[in-house]
Amino acid sequence: MDKFKRNERLAVMTQVLTAAPNKIFTLSHFCEMFGAAKSTVSEDAAILAETMRQFRLGTVETVTGAAGGMRYRPMTQQGEGRRFMENVCEMMRAPSRVLPGGFLYFSDILSDPELVSGMGRLFAGEYYDAGVDFVLTMETKGIPVALMTAQALHVPLIIARHSSKVYEGSAVNISYVSGKGVIETMSLSRRAVREGSTALIVDDFMRGGGTARGMLSMLGEFNVKCAGACFVMATESAGVTALEGAKPLMLLGGVRDGAPIQVRVADWVK
Amino acid sequence: MDKFKRNERLAVMTQVLTAAPNKIFTLSHFCEMFGAAKSTVSEDAAILAETMRQFRLGTVETVTGAAGGMRYRPMTQQGEGRRFMENVCEMMRAPSRVLPGGFLYFSDILSDPELVSGMGRLFAGEYYDAGVDFVLTMETKGIPVALMTAQALHVPLIIARHSSKVYEGSAVNISYVSGKGVIETMSLSRRAVREGSTALIVDDFMRGGGTARGMLSMLGEFNVKCAGACFVMATESAGVTALEGAKPLMLLGGVRDGAPIQVRVADWVK
Repeated sequence: MDKFKRNERLAVMTQVLTAAPNKIFTLSHFCEMFGAAKSTVSEDAAILAETMRQFRLGTVETVTGAAGGMRYRPMTQQGEGRRFMENVCEMMRAPSRVLPGGFLYFSDILSDPELVSGMGRLFAGEYYDAGVDFVLTMETKGIPVALMTAQALHVPLIIARHSSKVYEGSAVNISYVSGKGVIETMSLSRRAVREGSTALIVDDFMRGGGTARGMLSMLGEFNVKCAGACFVMATESAGVTALEGAKPLMLLGGVRDGAPIQVRVADWVK
Repeated sequence: MDKFKRNERLAVMTQVLTAAPNKIFTLSHFCEMFGAAKSTVSEDAAILAETMRQFRLGTVETVTGAAGGMRYRPMTQQGEGRRFMENVCEMMRAPSRVLPGGFLYFSDILSDPELVSGMGRLFAGEYYDAGVDFVLTMETKGIPVALMTAQALHVPLIIARHSSKVYEGSAVNISYVSGKGVIETMSLSRRAVREGSTALIVDDFMRGGGTARGMLSMLGEFNVKCAGACFVMATESAGVTALEGAKPLMLLGGVRDGAPIQVRVADWVK
């Protein structure tokens, strides 16, 4: 007889798998945990996969091969990502967000754990099979959403700085032209990055694409491939032309005092 | 007859509850989800609570009253937090981490999603009943662990900056003396903080406690109470004297080239 009931095993497997998205757990891991046979755990896995699918809570997959096992991926189902982002857009449209100079206040959204983890899942969902080794962001505002993307992909986050810091060790510094047309510095710790790996760029906002191109050129210095570039928001013009293949969640039209804020969910968000 | 089996309902409840720690879900939420009676869902909840307890995966609690329902708290059991942090200390002791000037490289640890979410759970576990309204950190390195703490507490994260930014709107700026004895500026957006609320300070490192005292004085400007101050690491001397009631996870002794790195888990970590 099994030591634990199926419903107990399923609850525990769900907690363990969803707490570490995209991490592969061997069947043996759960066999030991439950003192159960492989056949039992396999059956549990099949039930769990079907249940997650039915309730649209993500996918539980069996990975075969030497490094095989089970993993959970918090995929967003058709329609859900769009509904989620429509809500965020609605928050963005509050007239009180307009700041002098046509800026929009959305720091609250960029550091809300529930919102950034939802957005991180949307980004991750596009790159599960792209062999991403790490997520790269530029300090400061994009860090929360970049961290949540890294968590969903089960890879580390690496943060580029505006200047070299003594506690980062030796660093590669580059100059780039920011969206505002100003020459800025970007610094990345040499020990943080492994040559020949693959990065995913995640950042908060793209206006002219200058910072994003800076990050691309920084990745080039390390001989690192770029799998893609994700942004919480981009201007309507930048979204199309500034960087090929960029994925902004929201597109921002004009911001003028007194006029409604023009912001919409990007077409790729399903 | 119920539409879904108990093991299916338990898997789904686990996913929903653990994905939003400390958030209260009403029984009705699950009744609607499953088309099940309240008595059925109550029984499910009791089984889930017992299972999580047995496997030491956190607590599932029933909250009574008008705003009542169920919530999941990722509590760390006696001994586990210490084991987890002993591992992190072991990583910290790698001689390759020593930088010129007695600095220690640990940016990789501070932005590893798995490690910072573990540390965030340890911090949150100390403050579940402290009525924390938001987590406050100072840019940049503490942002990941502060975000994960905020997620575990189900509250927003607010980030203080080194200078006013146009996209943060009007801000309160203060001057403070940093751990290095330099006068620095700290800026906090006025619209980010609600007067009379309660904050938890989370940051990466405390040397002399200057930045932490700066954050305390900033909170005073907003008439905000401070529930506590958590740090990934503090120097042995700062850990004891720099700030009353501070909770550093690790205590750092001397760092000298060639000598072993003296770092240990703080006593409060169980």
